[in-house]
Amino acid sequence: MAKKMKATCKSHPDIAFIKYWGKADPKTRIPQNNSISMGLSNLYSVCTIEFGPSFNQDTIEFLNEKIVKEEELQRIIMVLDRVRKLAKTNLRAKVVTKNSFPKGAGIASSGSGLSAVTMAACWALRLKLSRIELSKLARLASGTACRRIIDGFVEWHKGTNSNNSYSVQLFPPDYWQIADIVVIVAETMKKVRSTKGHSLADTSPFQKVRLKNIPAKIKAIKVAMKKKDFTVFGQILESEALNFHTIALTSQPPILYWEGTTMEIMKRVQEWRDQGLESYFTIDAGPTVHIICQPKDVQRLKKRLKTISGIQRLSVNYPSIGARVINQHLF
Amino acid sequence: MAKKMKATCKSHPDIAFIKYWGKADPKTRIPQNNSISMGLSNLYSVCTIEFGPSFNQDTIEFLNEKIVKEEELQRIIMVLDRVRKLAKTNLRAKVVTKNSFPKGAGIASSGSGLSAVTMAACWALRLKLSRIELSKLARLASGTACRRIIDGFVEWHKGTNSNNSYSVQLFPPDYWQIADIVVIVAETMKKVRSTKGHSLADTSPFQKVRLKNIPAKIKAIKVAMKKKDFTVFGQILESEALNFHTIALTSQPPILYWEGTTMEIMKRVQEWRDQGLESYFTIDAGPTVHIICQPKDVQRLKKRLKTISGIQRLSVNYPSIGARVINQHLF
Repeated sequence: MAKKMKATCKSHPDIAFIKYWGKADPKTRIPQNNSISMGLSNLYSVCTIEFGPSFNQDTIEFLNEKIVKEEELQRIIMVLDRVRKLAKTNLRAKVVTKNSFPKGAGIASSGSGLSAVTMAACWALRLKLSRIELSKLARLASGTACRRIIDGFVEWHKGTNSNNSYSVQLFPPDYWQIADIVVIVAETMKKVRSTKGHSLADTSPFQKVRLKNIPAKIKAIKVAMKKKDFTVFGQILESEALNFHTIALTSQPPILYWEGTTMEIMKRVQEWRDQGLESYFTIDAGPTVHIICQPKDVQRLKKRLKTISGIQRLSVNYPSIGARVINQHLF
Repeated sequence: MAKKMKATCKSHPDIAFIKYWGKADPKTRIPQNNSISMGLSNLYSVCTIEFGPSFNQDTIEFLNEKIVKEEELQRIIMVLDRVRKLAKTNLRAKVVTKNSFPKGAGIASSGSGLSAVTMAACWALRLKLSRIELSKLARLASGTACRRIIDGFVEWHKGTNSNNSYSVQLFPPDYWQIADIVVIVAETMKKVRSTKGHSLADTSPFQKVRLKNIPAKIKAIKVAMKKKDFTVFGQILESEALNFHTIALTSQPPILYWEGTTMEIMKRVQEWRDQGLESYFTIDAGPTVHIICQPKDVQRLKKRLKTISGIQRLSVNYPSIGARVINQHLF
């Protein structure tokens, strides 16, 4: 009996220190600027895919999720089609996927989810691609997914076309133990999805200036990371988070990703810092706050966060590996 | 017996639809851009000043205020000195002043307060200046004070020097009955005073672009005001508020004027609007939210605001007159 064409992949979302916002080519998801991120060890997406002649059509199941949008299904089917084309097959697939965290709240669920789908599909069909090839393939499904293939601290080189836009490792996960306390303040799906947000970036009067200043910022944060200078690193990432949200806030129409509790936490992080408890906030396209700190301060920060109302969930994360094939299938 | 050299003046703070942010000359408070505002009928500062040979020194009393900073006293003494110079006198003064609202929470208290001081000092010393001369004189004390001398809807022409930087009326108060529901969310003094904030404007990478786009925005909002097109007017003022705050957010160091409740209200205003209840938010340099609406919607909005926690006080305002001499002295 032939071996089953089945594989399971686990992938972590990441937090971007320098954000990806605005696409140079929406079709192939070539970004307007390089971005830098780190994978989050305690959050993940898992996806099991099996291809086979017994499947008449692609079926996709999201575990633990009430609402799945047609658009999400389409994005997964497009991954399957892409991988089928590379593997020269027409076999249909059964896909089961789940996330350990809520979607659409500012944790890069499409990044971890679609990198897991891409890798699982390739493995199921015995396509052994290099990390770079996988990164490029995942990028076609979701921009940030191209970062999620790589271990540790990652830079996505924007490139100029589909062949040279992919992610590379800056430092391995164990290079620098910094923590990201992910503070989920709303479990509802954000109003403006990232794909839509990206398309509005150029309507902000400030996007051009932002893009012009990114290379210097990338350079500066890489120097801080190299020196493990947490203070400079933190100042750059927090200022970058505000810079990025400025673009969203001044898009036409404006996008307000923050909730009241988001703002509350931003203010407190700055206050606590003034008092000597050093941490920096960053926020992706959603209300979730990521508090970047050193491991020694995690417990104190968690304790202080407990005094803020409106927080739904906390998750403490350290730098993670990228997407991996695992043995625990979901079906 | 000679008539007393005593006068009392009442002046209203305003809400800026196009914000003043950044000074071309900090000393004479020449702004980097024109601004447009309207006076707020139910908020005010009152100031009584008496000059006389029996006063050995200037004394200043703030009624109902626990904390008065040295800097505030100095700014008032500088007004007295300026007016004494114009009136060619060395007489000292007694000053008593009060505000009907908390200072430093994003209601332009220095604008109403120092325009009242300027006007009261001039009247007490029998200096009968024109509105334009008063506007220029008040500007030296506080930038926004130059707008508070004028009735109704006002434009501050930035000018190029101290002689041509002053405010003029665009429309009288009864031209257009629009309401400003002032929502005070924190009665504490903001961390970064406006004077400091102005000085940081140029550290934002976006200030130059902001300034470049202001003339077109001024033109557009004046057209909307002329047509009394509330929707276009509202869209411009809300987008301008976000634009202004993104300069603060991206200053070095960043200034976060919003509180959690500020953000909460911003989001709700947009939601209510999507549901057909039309209003627009604007926010000056502080956490206070100004909800600009039509009189017919004031009661519905007030009712909805009651569902939001963290609101300290509401004040419903209509377009007001500028600074006036009144007969009710504070002493």
